[in-house]
This record gives sequence, C-alpha cells and structure tokens, in this order.
Amino acid sequence: MSVTAAKGFRAAGVIAGIKASGRADLALVSNLGPLQAAAGVFTSNRFAAAPVQWSQQAIADGQLAAVVLNSGGANACTGDAGYADSVRTAELVADAVGCTASQVAVCSTGLIGVRLPMDAVATGVTLATAALAEDGGPSAAAAIMTTDTVPKQAAHASASGWTVGGMAKGAGMLAPALATMLVVVTTDAVLDSAQLDTALRTATALTFDRADSDGCMSTNDTVLLLASGASQVTPDVAEFTAALTQVCASLARQLLADAEGASHDIEVRVTSAASEADALEIARSVARSNLFKCAIFGNDPNWGRVLAAAGTTAAAFDPAAVDVAFNGVGVFVDGQLGADRSAVDLTGRDVLVELALHAGSASASIWTNDLTYGYVKENAEYSS
Amino acid sequence: MSVTAAKGFRAAGVIAGIKASGRADLALVSNLGPLQAAAGVFTSNRFAAAPVQWSQQAIADGQLAAVVLNSGGANACTGDAGYADSVRTAELVADAVGCTASQVAVCSTGLIGVRLPMDAVATGVTLATAALAEDGGPSAAAAIMTTDTVPKQAAHASASGWTVGGMAKGAGMLAPALATMLVVVTTDAVLDSAQLDTALRTATALTFDRADSDGCMSTNDTVLLLASGASQVTPDVAEFTAALTQVCASLARQLLADAEGASHDIEVRVTSAASEADALEIARSVARSNLFKCAIFGNDPNWGRVLAAAGTTAAAFDPAAVDVAFNGVGVFVDGQLGADRSAVDLTGRDVLVELALHAGSASASIWTNDLTYGYVKENAEYSS
Repeated sequence: MSVTAAKGFRAAGVIAGIKASGRADLALVSNLGPLQAAAGVFTSNRFAAAPVQWSQQAIADGQLAAVVLNSGGANACTGDAGYADSVRTAELVADAVGCTASQVAVCSTGLIGVRLPMDAVATGVTLATAALAEDGGPSAAAAIMTTDTVPKQAAHASASGWTVGGMAKGAGMLAPALATMLVVVTTDAVLDSAQLDTALRTATALTFDRADSDGCMSTNDTVLLLASGASQVTPDVAEFTAALTQVCASLARQLLADAEGASHDIEVRVTSAASEADALEIARSVARSNLFKCAIFGNDPNWGRVLAAAGTTAAAFDPAAVDVAFNGVGVFVDGQLGADRSAVDLTGRDVLVELALHAGSASASIWTNDLTYGYVKENAEYSS
Repeated sequence: MSVTAAKGFRAAGVIAGIKASGRADLALVSNLGPLQAAAGVFTSNRFAAAPVQWSQQAIADGQLAAVVLNSGGANACTGDAGYADSVRTAELVADAVGCTASQVAVCSTGLIGVRLPMDAVATGVTLATAALAEDGGPSAAAAIMTTDTVPKQAAHASASGWTVGGMAKGAGMLAPALATMLVVVTTDAVLDSAQLDTALRTATALTFDRADSDGCMSTNDTVLLLASGASQVTPDVAEFTAALTQVCASLARQLLADAEGASHDIEVRVTSAASEADALEIARSVARSNLFKCAIFGNDPNWGRVLAAAGTTAAAFDPAAVDVAFNGVGVFVDGQLGADRSAVDLTGRDVLVELALHAGSASASIWTNDLTYGYVKENAEYSS
C-alpha cells in the first residue's frame, strides 16, 4: 500500500530540519531497476516552481533513478537563486545514490516565495540515503505532508505478477491542469517510458484532473510514475492503465477527504450531456461556486445555486429540461420545482449532486469539497 | 442622491408582505415623461429568472413607463408558473399606473426556486402606486434590500441642467456578465433609447462588469436606465456617458463595500499589459482566487497566491519580469523577491494589489472582497 509496494524501489522519510516544527520534511525514492523508465505530468501554471522546471528537464529523456521531495518550502517564485537550489538538490542526491543529476527529479511543497535552507536539505539527503529501505514507503509518505492530517498511499497488485503503488500529498490549492499535488507512483512492471507516459496521462485525466477542491492551481503540482521492471513481467497495457487509474483515483479521493477544513466530500455528476467536455464544464462550474459550496456546508440542497452555476456555461442543454437531484432526491425535475428540499439529508460526509441535461449520452464527475470556516481559518491564519 | 433625483420620476417603497420579516419588500419607479425612453442590460445566465425574461421583452422597443421591483423572492427557476407570475405583476402595475403591461419592467431578488405570493404582490402594487412621490427614491432603495445592510444610491447633476440618479441592491452572488445586481438609473436628459443603450453598455462595462465579489453570476441581474426628458436639455453624449459611468461606479463600489461578510475592499490593478483584455483576465483570475481572498482576510500580502492565480491565465507576459506590489510596497520585483512582506500594512479596509506585466501599455482593475468567516456564515446559515 505504498510507494515501495512494487519490487525494485526503496524509500525513506527523514527530519532534515527544513520545517520549523521539527517534523519529517524530506523524502527520497530510489529506483534500483533493472529499468529506470519514467513519465511525469506537471502543473501548467506559468509560475511553475523551480523544482518543476528542473524535473521537466530531468524527465525529458524518460529516465529517472530517484525522486527527492521536501516539504517546508515550495521553492516557487524564488528567482534564479531558487532554481540553483533545485539543481544543487539534484546534484546532492546524485552524489549520494550514485547517478547523474539529470536522473533525479526534485519536488518541493510549502509556502511560495521562500528560499530553501540548503544546509538542511544537504543533511536530509545524507540521512535519507542512509535510511533507504524496501519498506520505507510509509515514512516517505509522512515526510511530504504539509497541512495534510494523514499520509496518502495506495497500491494494486495484479494477478499477473506486477504491482503499482504510490503516495501523494496535498490539502489545499487543489485544482487541476494535468496534476494538482505531489504524487509519486511506482511499478515493477516492464514498460518503457512512452508506455508509461500514455498510461499516466490517461490515468491523471480521469482522476487528479477531476479533483477540484478550491479552484486554485498550484505552482508545484507534479505526478511522477517510475518503472523498475523488477517483476520481469510485461503487463497488458490496458490492464496496467486500469490499475494505475485505480491507484490514482484512490490517492485523489484521499486528497479530497483530507482537504483543508472540509466537512463534506462532494461528487458533482453531470449525465445525459451532449459530450464529455460539456459534462466536465458544467460539473467544474458547479464545483467552483462558493455559494454552492457554502450551502453544502450548511447541509442545504440549494439546487438554485447549482443551476445558477450551470447557467454560466456554454454547454449544450435546454434550461427548461434539466433535472437536479441531491443524494438521489429529485429537487428540480424537467425544468420545474420537484421534491421539497426537506426530503434531502445532507448530514453525512458524502454528497452526490446529479444534473441530468437530456442532451445526449455523455457523463462525467468532478469531486470537490464544501467551503467552511475551517478552510477560511487555515488559509487566513497560516503562519507566513 | 436617488432614483428620483432626476425630474420626471416618482418612486415608492412599501411593505407588501412578501418577506416574512415584515420589512419593506416592493418598490415602484414611475416615469412621468414627456419621454419614456429606456435601455437595459441583463444577466447572461442561461437560467435567467422569469422577471428577466419578461423585462427583456418589455424593453425591446426601447420604452418603459414603470419598473416594479420586489425583494423576498427571486422568482428564478420557478418554471412556467413563475413566468406567469411576472407577467401578472406587470399587468397589475399597468392597471395601477395607467399604461400597458409591455411598458413595465419587473425585477425580483431573493431566494431561487420559490414562487412569489401573488396576493402580497398585488397588495404591494396598490400601496406603492398610492405612495408614489417625487422624493420617494430613498424608500424605494430600502425596499429592494435583501442581505444588504444599507441602501445604495447615487446621483450626478450636470451644470447643463440635467441629472442622473440611481439605486442598487446586491450583497452576494456578485459577478459580472453585463450586470450583477438590480439597478435602476434615471435621467431627465433628452435622449432616445439607442443613445441610452450605448451609454449604458459603456458605463456597465467599466463599472458593474468589473465588480466581482464572489465569482457567482446571478440569475436575476438587471440594470435599467430610464429617461424622462423632463429637463428639456439634450446633453452632450460624451458628458452624459461620463456622468452615467460615475453614478454606476459609485453604486458598484457601494455594493462591494456592503458585500456579505467582507472585511476588505480590494482593487486588483494590472498595469503595463499587452491589452486591456489581458489585464482584465489576470485581474479577474486573482480576484477569484479563494486562497488570495483568505490571505487578505488574514492581513497577509501573500504575493505567491497572486502569482499562482496570474499563472493560470493565457495573457501575454514573461513570468520572469513581473512586479507585484501591495498598497504601494513592491514585494516581488522583476521576477525576484522584493521587500519583506512585513513592510506591508493591510489592517485598513482598502487594499490595492498591483501587478505590472511589462508587456505593453494597457491597464484595468477588478474590484473584489476578501473571503471571511462572515461570508461562509451568511451563505451556509441563511434560512432556506
């Protein structure tokens, strides 16, 4: 159930001294091979952090020997000096594990605009290299937490003899555009980097790209997939992609379940749409409506706010023929008032909002959270 | 300073019994002429409320004799029956003031999905007609309030002998797309409906369209401009447009200053952009970032969140050459760390965030609010 579930990987999480709290803050994942194939997807934010800029270059040849991740600082918007820090971090890892810097991806998370304490990073790399272990996944997952309250891990073992496992962090600034958090997934299946890339893009498009906690796109989002080939099994690509998607979906749901201050996990499902793109446009518009998200916090099935958000889109549908249901209760049916909202119970953690457009046969969901006092508190009173 | 500041108009606000609270809830504005020229802009939400659908037809010929506005219910998403209620409301006013129903615009505000109590509406129309007065503007402005804490009014008297005055309501679901609230502006200048339409679209594009409190577009947004010609003065069109813009800007600022739960009024100003559209795209992206808005609530000049939001846009700029300043203090300069954030004081109500793109000579601002416990409370705990 972790980033070391697949054969051929070792990992560690250590206290480097980057975080003032003294908690674990540096993780290392090492691929022992025989393969070192890799693929990655990254934030499309134009202020992509220094580690993202570095890792995009490092992975360009489809090969990675190691990934180093730190919490306690995002190293974003730190200028040329910050970029040099990411390069230096890769060099430190390369020296420690015995590879070239261009085989090392770097991921950072924490506050934007703060330089990393490089002495602490160097200490952490030394400690983590010494601690690398085949059961080190859980400690690595713990070391990348920021406002996360629990580590996020998932794995899937195929009957064919290969395994996919991964870890993730992320509790805020969660909105898609290829990826929305730091995620490392490993596999011991025999796949080349082009196959990994195709599978990863398919999986993230269906999972992380459809998680939208607060509509805010990070500068540091990174999802990496590493293959060791250590199982010596060449998988069926479709089966592998499905397993990868399942692991990514589990990690995405864990991220939303731990989102800052949230009290409800919400699926906005749009059905009978003319196209999947239409369904996603509407689902995302609803998921980003602060008024809708506040209503859910108040346990109110406010379908008016759902429609108001849907009405801002260009998706194909007839407003006079739309249905809205909350947890299976149709509160707006065929463009007219439906069941009384008192028939809906939203006191549970999970909320399902369904919009039926009656415009076609496509459907899609976006997963989001409610907007709560806790979200405002975490994002107004954080130490900065 | 009100909707009756211009000659040729009478108004009233009365207790019709629509609101359970027993507060004033129906307003009437009557144009005595000699002209009855009018123009309007409406929400582009595809779930436009019944009164919006009615008023768009009523104003199609450029003529209005009266506007009736109710609070206590938006009459949105109420189906065919709700539309019939808006038609009936116009007929009641037409009978009472002596015009045709197609000369009466109808505006409603309040909860979505609730039918209006038509007996109360009929009572209100009778009472309001009897109460119409040349100094009735303030009572009309009070009767359209919902979660507003103060009425919003503005006026401008030209040295040439004509006047523009208006009223507005709106405290939530404030985001642009032609208009974002209920607004009635009157003038006694001699202008035809085509001139009014051009002036109104110019004014709203620069004012209401640039106010974005919470990114949520209403189903009921309406801005109406009525001309009586009672001053008998034909104005210089440019001067009139400028005066109208000034009145609309005052009303827009009043709306934001009274936005639900807000503790800061924020101007996001983008300068040296390649185009005005680019400047607006970035300013709106920042203004809609919940993380940015929470940071301002916490009095933190979190420029990282400003850049993260700007980085999601397609506007032309070089991320390595951007400046960010809070209240005049440059915290990010030429793509590098600038003044320490401790140099910025955000304890006052007004906050100015400036992004200089160094990509051209265009500039634009969006006005918004912070995201607070109060906003969540008002939108989670409202009675529904």
